[in-house]
Amino acid sequence: MISRADLESLDRADPLARFRGELDLPEGIVYLDGNSLGPLTRRARERVREVVEGQWGRDLIRSWNLHGWIDLPRRVGDRIASLIGAEPGEVIAADSTSIDLFKLAAAALEVRAGAVLSERCNFPTDLYVLQGLARLLGAPGARGPELRYLDSRDELAPALRAGGVALVVLTHVDYRSGELWDLAEATRLVHEAGALALWDLSHSAGAVPVDLGGAGADLAVGCGYKYLNGGPGAPAFLYVARRWQEALRSPLQGWLGHAAPFAFEPEYRPAPGIERFQCGTPPVLSLAALDAALELFEGVGLAGLRAKSMALGDRFLELVDQECAGLGLEVACPRDSERRGSQVSLRHPEGYAIVQALIARGVIGDFRAPDVLRFGLAPLYLRFVDLWEAVRHLRAVLETGEWDRPEHRRRAPVT
Amino acid sequence: MISRADLESLDRADPLARFRGELDLPEGIVYLDGNSLGPLTRRARERVREVVEGQWGRDLIRSWNLHGWIDLPRRVGDRIASLIGAEPGEVIAADSTSIDLFKLAAAALEVRAGAVLSERCNFPTDLYVLQGLARLLGAPGARGPELRYLDSRDELAPALRAGGVALVVLTHVDYRSGELWDLAEATRLVHEAGALALWDLSHSAGAVPVDLGGAGADLAVGCGYKYLNGGPGAPAFLYVARRWQEALRSPLQGWLGHAAPFAFEPEYRPAPGIERFQCGTPPVLSLAALDAALELFEGVGLAGLRAKSMALGDRFLELVDQECAGLGLEVACPRDSERRGSQVSLRHPEGYAIVQALIARGVIGDFRAPDVLRFGLAPLYLRFVDLWEAVRHLRAVLETGEWDRPEHRRRAPVT
Repeated sequence: MISRADLESLDRADPLARFRGELDLPEGIVYLDGNSLGPLTRRARERVREVVEGQWGRDLIRSWNLHGWIDLPRRVGDRIASLIGAEPGEVIAADSTSIDLFKLAAAALEVRAGAVLSERCNFPTDLYVLQGLARLLGAPGARGPELRYLDSRDELAPALRAGGVALVVLTHVDYRSGELWDLAEATRLVHEAGALALWDLSHSAGAVPVDLGGAGADLAVGCGYKYLNGGPGAPAFLYVARRWQEALRSPLQGWLGHAAPFAFEPEYRPAPGIERFQCGTPPVLSLAALDAALELFEGVGLAGLRAKSMALGDRFLELVDQECAGLGLEVACPRDSERRGSQVSLRHPEGYAIVQALIARGVIGDFRAPDVLRFGLAPLYLRFVDLWEAVRHLRAVLETGEWDRPEHRRRAPVT
Repeated sequence: MISRADLESLDRADPLARFRGELDLPEGIVYLDGNSLGPLTRRARERVREVVEGQWGRDLIRSWNLHGWIDLPRRVGDRIASLIGAEPGEVIAADSTSIDLFKLAAAALEVRAGAVLSERCNFPTDLYVLQGLARLLGAPGARGPELRYLDSRDELAPALRAGGVALVVLTHVDYRSGELWDLAEATRLVHEAGALALWDLSHSAGAVPVDLGGAGADLAVGCGYKYLNGGPGAPAFLYVARRWQEALRSPLQGWLGHAAPFAFEPEYRPAPGIERFQCGTPPVLSLAALDAALELFEGVGLAGLRAKSMALGDRFLELVDQECAGLGLEVACPRDSERRGSQVSLRHPEGYAIVQALIARGVIGDFRAPDVLRFGLAPLYLRFVDLWEAVRHLRAVLETGEWDRPEHRRRAPVT
């Protein structure tokens, strides 16, 4: 039996406890949705104010040079590189995850012809992007790549052995189940088949350590507004291993990817390094918030972050077993923390309404169709005692049936 | 002879004078670069603070519904629509100008096969985008479109008569010369040739009224951070005439362009209206700043804005004639205000250093390679007396030769 006191003592022993004070979490909220939108950090709040009032407001256009706005995408990229096992100069912040995925998938298909392989359960926007690219490039057989989908992870090796695969697009942590891919092993299989691996790290970066360099990974993209706490719609990031940077070209050729953006040459000439994967002018306010939020990770050991994330997940599942047995929940994520990202997923036919009832009680998780209750466990700021509160409310919502109210069944535009 | 007193009296009679108080322009600065980065408005400053601290910080993920973040791209689009002669639902804020241009050019080439025609002197990033799209779609003749360039505006009609043109991409106001296209007449010629017209309104929106509807225009894109004052790297906007919305599809298929983003369907299904041209999650902080800045235009009559813009340009050129005769400047923009956007361009072989010397004196314009001194005249907040100050300093910089110093010749990363 786990008691509240047990969790309190875990919090007292938590070497990451000091980070919570860096955040502006509202009182009375248990925030288990940092994987949809990371919370506001003190640093981001102060930085945005400084960029708006002190830089834009006072120095106007001169800020591009004076305050280094022009290098911000690269500086942010270098910060993220340290969280995902990349070298400085291999990562840049740019555009959205969808757009970055488009750039890298298109670039990869220029150097390798063949099919694109992904998972049918991949985050849909990743599939939409690949479908759009295939559509743009033409019907399969003409020049457009064929899209193939895995229905389970066991199918990866046979699908690669079947041949003809140019590019494999996988998400490191499944957005619904939280299941982790073995990134190094999958990359090895992909390379063995002569294909390139493009990883979506949206649900990893900032919570699950990644070692792109160690895995010999080719390409990756990821999200700035989840565990990185970059703010709503923060720019995404993309990674191109140094050995690929010369050969690959983004199809989205904007001026900031040009070797000499301010020479105003009539022909495009890609910048030599990772900068070639930029396109237009980045949204500086949003990018500055991301940069400031990333400062928080400077003092954090990734091993410690992962250890706490795993412990949070294990305790959460134990509490669910202990408190919610017989209440109709199923565990929808791996019980083995080694195979689980930084979230816990449960399943219930009334998942949507249950999540709304929890939110009304101040426990914010989210729902993912068709029936998944998803709880993000951001190790940087979550307390073990928050799990107690979350599961206590979950039990109450189920026991009382309070989820079964019209206001909890009403679908909001964003779920 | 124009005197300072003449200009002061124009300011006293200026019906737009009250707008200057809405801005946080620093003391001692004459800001003639609102066409590179519009200044901070009081509204944008307050809104960003509210979105960061009151929305993101307090309501976290719930803000997508509670504060309508999900509809923000459309709301911003509708605000911009009123400035460019579009209907509500024909404009949406999304991504960068470059990316929006890519989307619309690719979409147009799906419904019309043939060459793409633009101007060799178009803003280079527009050309880069088209070059990237052509490269992605393959060699000309295969499936990739041929790119053709006009060397002068007179060539438009013959180039269209030559046949085979599917899409014409023009910038309404030339970024260097400030020369205006007759948008309605050019669109008529393009349509007569069976092609589509895609207008870049980056240097028009917010300063030069545009009537896309009246011209029967097809497609347009534009910039949020110039005369619209949306802030550094503010999201861009795109326009698709309602009659085209059903037929055209963006090749950048992200979840926010899906008909049901939160149903997480495995296949892409484009949203019915302008929303289909969204892609990933928008940078909310930057987008909110743009939305707030646009509030300023609510009370502004476009005819009055244009009248003041033309008068500012005319007075500026008269002052240059009067004060700077014989100092080596050439006028590089149309003298006829009907043919000129909201800027004045001058030419000098030492343009770069002269612009830097002016900036050191607090007169901020910008330089455009190879030799253009560019002065943006934002009618919303500029005073006639600012022109006096600008030209007085310009004369002094030229007369004293103070531009000829190492610090003014030093090239900054951003010019």
